[in-house]
Amino acid sequence: MNRSEHKGKLFIISGPSGAGKGTICKRLIDETKVEISVSMTTRQPREGEVEGKSYYFTTKEDFLKAVEADGFLEWAEVYGNYYGTPKAKVDEKLAAGIDVVLEIDIQGALNVKEVYPDGIFIFILPPSMAELRKRITGRGSETEESLKLRLSQTLKEVSYIDKYDYCVVNGELEEAVARVKSIVVAEHSRVSQNIYKLIEQYKEEV
Amino acid sequence: MNRSEHKGKLFIISGPSGAGKGTICKRLIDETKVEISVSMTTRQPREGEVEGKSYYFTTKEDFLKAVEADGFLEWAEVYGNYYGTPKAKVDEKLAAGIDVVLEIDIQGALNVKEVYPDGIFIFILPPSMAELRKRITGRGSETEESLKLRLSQTLKEVSYIDKYDYCVVNGELEEAVARVKSIVVAEHSRVSQNIYKLIEQYKEEV
Repeated sequence: MNRSEHKGKLFIISGPSGAGKGTICKRLIDETKVEISVSMTTRQPREGEVEGKSYYFTTKEDFLKAVEADGFLEWAEVYGNYYGTPKAKVDEKLAAGIDVVLEIDIQGALNVKEVYPDGIFIFILPPSMAELRKRITGRGSETEESLKLRLSQTLKEVSYIDKYDYCVVNGELEEAVARVKSIVVAEHSRVSQNIYKLIEQYKEEV
Repeated sequence: MNRSEHKGKLFIISGPSGAGKGTICKRLIDETKVEISVSMTTRQPREGEVEGKSYYFTTKEDFLKAVEADGFLEWAEVYGNYYGTPKAKVDEKLAAGIDVVLEIDIQGALNVKEVYPDGIFIFILPPSMAELRKRITGRGSETEESLKLRLSQTLKEVSYIDKYDYCVVNGELEEAVARVKSIVVAEHSRVSQNIYKLIEQYKEEV
């Protein structure tokens, strides 16, 4: 299937750790019709987690087979467990006219761009490095050295911003959420195949 | 001045007569920071009209000199009077970081696109030809023959939609206004020169 014929749109929300992409993504899922893509993982289900909703749970063997078969939009190994976004599941939703959002780091987003060049890539930025530092240290899990490493990593990451369509500075959360929602609405107003159908209808009416 | 360095953005709201572009444009001006560009005209001021606010009033001679000097973004003669959008006034606002909206017919919009290729072109569409017919006849000034002419004119006009960035179907006015407002917000979230300044600031902070 030609992906440009998809009725749903794929939004990729990305940015450095601490910029707030997770929170914005959750708000988008909770408050709009945009749906998240359920990941596949090899880790054990935790209490309350539901197959197909929290994750698709699978074995390491099956996961690696899917990797071989190019079945993931992106995948990663974290502490010995595998996590990935199954391409087929994303395609199913898009084909059904459902918007899908992926929350993903910069490297992952660049990989997704190769598969879905028509995706809408949104970079979430912190208002300043001072604020980012504050947010990261607020989590309390960083030494001064690892903090410095993360900030200089962030500087490297933002240099990829020109691969993105939009950037939203997350200073005030409500403002940032409203901006991302506006991007979703605006993208659905782009001149596209859908509009040519309406024009065909016009012709039948005149 | 290189127009891509402008801080303000130029929105062109266009579409067939009866689609409702005037109403949407007015709502945008009333409810957002977007400003309209004041036109220049050779017609006599009417009571209550204010120079520089309603119009820039001028003589036919000066108007035609400005046309010669390529001083208008677009201009037209209507019932013996001239109307035009002075380029310099639009540039002044954009340079000052003010968004400008132009409400303009399709031919005019295509002319503007040659001067401002970076403008954001929004096509307002009626939900159906039946509805357009109803709106036009509601104004009560059309014979059946002129109505047919207008509808087939509309069909010709919509064929230019692929020159536009966005299209908004004006079925329900509130919905259409919200969409146009979202487009304005989204366009201000595009990755642009402005964001590189923020990134430079980051570098100074680390």
